[in-house]
Amino acid sequence: MGKIKIGIVGYGNLGKGVEKALAQNPDMELVAVFTRRQPEQIASGGVKFEHVSAAEKYKGVIDVMILCGGSATDLPEQTPVFARQFNTVDSFDTHAKIPEFYEEVDAAAKQGGRLSVISTGWDPGLFSLNRLLGESILPQGTGYTFWGKGVSQGHSDAIRRVPGVKAGVQYTVPVPAAIERIRAGETPDLTTREKHLRQCFVVAEENADQEAIREAIVTMPNYFSDYDTTVTFITEEQLRAEHQGMPHGGFVIRSGVTGEGTKQIIEFGLKLESNPEFTASVLVAYARAAVRLSRENQTGARTVLDIPFAYLSPKSGEELRRELL
Amino acid sequence: MGKIKIGIVGYGNLGKGVEKALAQNPDMELVAVFTRRQPEQIASGGVKFEHVSAAEKYKGVIDVMILCGGSATDLPEQTPVFARQFNTVDSFDTHAKIPEFYEEVDAAAKQGGRLSVISTGWDPGLFSLNRLLGESILPQGTGYTFWGKGVSQGHSDAIRRVPGVKAGVQYTVPVPAAIERIRAGETPDLTTREKHLRQCFVVAEENADQEAIREAIVTMPNYFSDYDTTVTFITEEQLRAEHQGMPHGGFVIRSGVTGEGTKQIIEFGLKLESNPEFTASVLVAYARAAVRLSRENQTGARTVLDIPFAYLSPKSGEELRRELL
Repeated sequence: MGKIKIGIVGYGNLGKGVEKALAQNPDMELVAVFTRRQPEQIASGGVKFEHVSAAEKYKGVIDVMILCGGSATDLPEQTPVFARQFNTVDSFDTHAKIPEFYEEVDAAAKQGGRLSVISTGWDPGLFSLNRLLGESILPQGTGYTFWGKGVSQGHSDAIRRVPGVKAGVQYTVPVPAAIERIRAGETPDLTTREKHLRQCFVVAEENADQEAIREAIVTMPNYFSDYDTTVTFITEEQLRAEHQGMPHGGFVIRSGVTGEGTKQIIEFGLKLESNPEFTASVLVAYARAAVRLSRENQTGARTVLDIPFAYLSPKSGEELRRELL
Repeated sequence: MGKIKIGIVGYGNLGKGVEKALAQNPDMELVAVFTRRQPEQIASGGVKFEHVSAAEKYKGVIDVMILCGGSATDLPEQTPVFARQFNTVDSFDTHAKIPEFYEEVDAAAKQGGRLSVISTGWDPGLFSLNRLLGESILPQGTGYTFWGKGVSQGHSDAIRRVPGVKAGVQYTVPVPAAIERIRAGETPDLTTREKHLRQCFVVAEENADQEAIREAIVTMPNYFSDYDTTVTFITEEQLRAEHQGMPHGGFVIRSGVTGEGTKQIIEFGLKLESNPEFTASVLVAYARAAVRLSRENQTGARTVLDIPFAYLSPKSGEELRRELL
């Protein structure tokens, strides 16, 4: 069995992260990156770029396509199309639309006799796995998910739309006191405001009214009005120097009870210096699983909840039992 | 489909924990507890007790036997025997012997057309899952497992064998400074001594030489000599009042690097007031999985690494996608 042959669709932060992750996995090989841009205009560095319309040529050559587009418009269109011709993995993360996305991709993949792993990454993804594990093992209990400290793209975009704002970034920050209460065994009902803070770092246009900007942000419905939000004005130089990274992370905590009130706590946490590079690493591990499931003649859509962890590893079952159990 | 019908083999702390866990899972029903003692001598509380020799009568009635014996002598003998006649779940935890135990149980279960999940619980078990997840997603990285704070039965037994010791309990305690270094992004090579402390609470016989006991404990090879060990002498009353619980827990941490030195940390932790009740809750969730796999006509041995999390839950795939992804 040769190396697993990979195609990447989309070459933004996530696609570039997948390229880097593949370099860490010697059982895999990047065949080509597919893009909607003119491929000859992309600096290659040894990677083969193809226009996305050329993908069909790679049927039977590429074992799995890692789809790195966005969830708003790219993936709802791309995944069902690719799922008919290739095994695929994506990070579709519009939680409310996952059920219908699953059905559509499942039908497409079955029609094409392929296997598609949807909605991988860390939330949905590793966090979903831990929510499921927690409630399955401790059915009498309360589950909590906290996000951050990390950059929220959606909220950063919302800031940038405020008149007078030149640039900005928003961090979602879990409230430490809330996490400490849960770790200490309490199972509080927490409001939105009690769980997360929102910290905004804003570069204002020259002569803009900073107080008006602050007011527009902290009162913005859906995005900020339900939170304690701080707005800090910074210079463009500070933004470049201190806020260029894309850190993220968070916690999934299950606080449950067994027997006669015996407290049991399960906690899973991530601390990520780069959200897209980590998400890419998860995609690559699930790409390996997709190929292995497909080689067993399984077809249709799968989520992380359906896939044994053994399929994520290049090691044999025997090696895993010896080294990791 | 009626309730899942459960048998418990062995009625020590773990078996009693399984009984309590079943009460929290309305899709399951305890049919009988099998014991080597005289069943009529056990206070029943509504539970049916049977001598272990009567198990065969329940073939075709019980969907899965949860084997709650010890790993030293009970399970190596019991699991292969039961695996020929029933689906089984156990918590075999002698790490070095798992590969050969797997092979033996696999052969027995296949012969009987049954499915056996071996070595569940939290280590082996949930911790193994997280070691595998960590190295699959972050292949360039270092994995750490810390245990405690918790009671180690083996080390408590070792204390009690020291001349002059009437009773005692030993806690394994992770060294906080080591964990903090890893959480901060370091990947230190840690010696045994740097990872865990051992705290002993000892009740000495009257007129025993406490200094000799202390010396015998802290210099004991394999058990204590490689650790910083504290020995505290207490009264029998203190032992009863303060050291009756069986707390445990620990952490699995993967500290890895993606791209050009980007640090990424995955951490899984447990904080358990009762080790046997939590282990029992894990056994029960995997009992559900064993029955579902068996209903798909799968046979042979499985470990936690081979089983999708979706099989642990009473919910349908559709419900899980809607509620947890």
